[in-house]
Amino acid sequence: MNAMIDRLIEKIMEMKNPTVAGLDPKLDYVPEAMKQAAFKEYGETFEGATQAILAFNKELIDALCDIVPAVKPQAAYYEMYGVPGIACMQETIRYAQSKGMYVILDAKRGDIGATSEAYAKAYLGETAIGGQEIPAYGADCMTVNPYLGTDGVKPFTEQCAKHQKGIFVLVKTSNPSSGELQDLKVKGKCIYEHVAELVKGWGSDLIGQYGYSSVGAVVGATYPEQAEALRAQMPHTYFLVPGYGAQGGKAEDVAKSFNPDGLGAIVNASRSIMCAYQKQGGTPGDAARAEAIRMRDDIMGAVNKKSL
Amino acid sequence: MNAMIDRLIEKIMEMKNPTVAGLDPKLDYVPEAMKQAAFKEYGETFEGATQAILAFNKELIDALCDIVPAVKPQAAYYEMYGVPGIACMQETIRYAQSKGMYVILDAKRGDIGATSEAYAKAYLGETAIGGQEIPAYGADCMTVNPYLGTDGVKPFTEQCAKHQKGIFVLVKTSNPSSGELQDLKVKGKCIYEHVAELVKGWGSDLIGQYGYSSVGAVVGATYPEQAEALRAQMPHTYFLVPGYGAQGGKAEDVAKSFNPDGLGAIVNASRSIMCAYQKQGGTPGDAARAEAIRMRDDIMGAVNKKSL
Repeated sequence: MNAMIDRLIEKIMEMKNPTVAGLDPKLDYVPEAMKQAAFKEYGETFEGATQAILAFNKELIDALCDIVPAVKPQAAYYEMYGVPGIACMQETIRYAQSKGMYVILDAKRGDIGATSEAYAKAYLGETAIGGQEIPAYGADCMTVNPYLGTDGVKPFTEQCAKHQKGIFVLVKTSNPSSGELQDLKVKGKCIYEHVAELVKGWGSDLIGQYGYSSVGAVVGATYPEQAEALRAQMPHTYFLVPGYGAQGGKAEDVAKSFNPDGLGAIVNASRSIMCAYQKQGGTPGDAARAEAIRMRDDIMGAVNKKSL
Repeated sequence: MNAMIDRLIEKIMEMKNPTVAGLDPKLDYVPEAMKQAAFKEYGETFEGATQAILAFNKELIDALCDIVPAVKPQAAYYEMYGVPGIACMQETIRYAQSKGMYVILDAKRGDIGATSEAYAKAYLGETAIGGQEIPAYGADCMTVNPYLGTDGVKPFTEQCAKHQKGIFVLVKTSNPSSGELQDLKVKGKCIYEHVAELVKGWGSDLIGQYGYSSVGAVVGATYPEQAEALRAQMPHTYFLVPGYGAQGGKAEDVAKSFNPDGLGAIVNASRSIMCAYQKQGGTPGDAARAEAIRMRDDIMGAVNKKSL
């Protein structure tokens, strides 16, 4: 089997679309009729809420699966519904994969070695029970927090190697206060640049046939200058780029995360795709598809302009 | 209702025991007979594994609840069993609370603002569905990762204020490579000292009647010199201290995390308590209780010696 990053790159090239649709299903995003139908059947309960969310996710996945290579479920918005929320997250992962999409689970885990190993096996690998090995979630990729250093990340890269999976490690996040720690300067370099060096090292054994590692980096669209510098610093690292759209990142900002080969980044949008129907009317699926095409063309235009 | 940290401190004083029992239930820790009984009824499945773990956790909680103030379930070891794992985590939290123990959920979450809010409501607060607000997990405290800065942590402190809950933010972790990022020096101070300053600020509005904030810090027992300096730097911050026992921290090391008032820290041990029966024989509950008493006396001895 190919390295995860190769399979993701091939899907991106095939669809000419370096974007990922975030599935952060706040209940406010779900159409009223869909919610009421689920509440009527299951009550105003975790079960009712997650049935509505699952129906919404499936409509979005159906509408996007032939033009968008991947989805990124945000774990928090499933965990908040307890057990039914986790069942909904599992079913969303399975459904997206059954439609040919890759799943980047945004869970931002990171712990001491033994505990990171449990997380890595849970989300990317298999859980051992007696003589069996059972995948609990089976995501293709996940996001990882680097604060604990190498021994907190290594169990994830081990599962990447064993099961041809991928991770994206937080380097420079998109939120307003990301600089409080990440921009502190040590010997003339910011913390996020030190993290970038670590990420390069963690991924150096997992480089695929297109020259990119299955150990990627999260680099926010909201900090284009930093993204440009990081792009130069880590040429073999794929970037997962949040912050386009609702958070303020523009196409020319995210273009800085791409290499001259037109590869090197996958750009996420969540709210603008999930809630497109609230702005533009139509069904959630049709509106999401139209917005995903607009986003693809917007970003590809800026990337192609840069590559000329 | 009192601030979370006041309730925890009162329990610690009442029991004269500043420790917390980690519930990181690797399947290897569970007695063979308990596993086989669950496998017989539920198969070698996630359901079978988590039924065995729940029975083990309940025996430990029953044996410890009148002498140990709190338990610390490590989320990874439940998440790895999918949906039944989450049900087991919820039931473990509920059972420990029904026996009067406080629950510090070790989940190390941290994300951009809106997502941290979802995590904070999930684990400490309530999830809104239609006209209802339902607690998904209802833990008393949880651990939080600071890498995203203030807007990634504030949603947690807001839930602490609203629901009288607590958090412990990672400052200096106990693992071997924690220094890779945390010890980098900025303007003469380590990153973890910068994080310590942020933690003080985040907790300044949540100080209870004993002079401690409901926003605490994780400070590993394996770095006693750093713990001593942090103790001086943040006198109003309670420390959650992992790394005692199996990871190598000794009583005189953890004593450095206490203030002269004999308060200021709660020390975790997981494996040494959960697996005491493997070393000492007897039932898991009896062995765990004996080890918890030995640990309490070991640590109180060192703390009292320091306070003299």
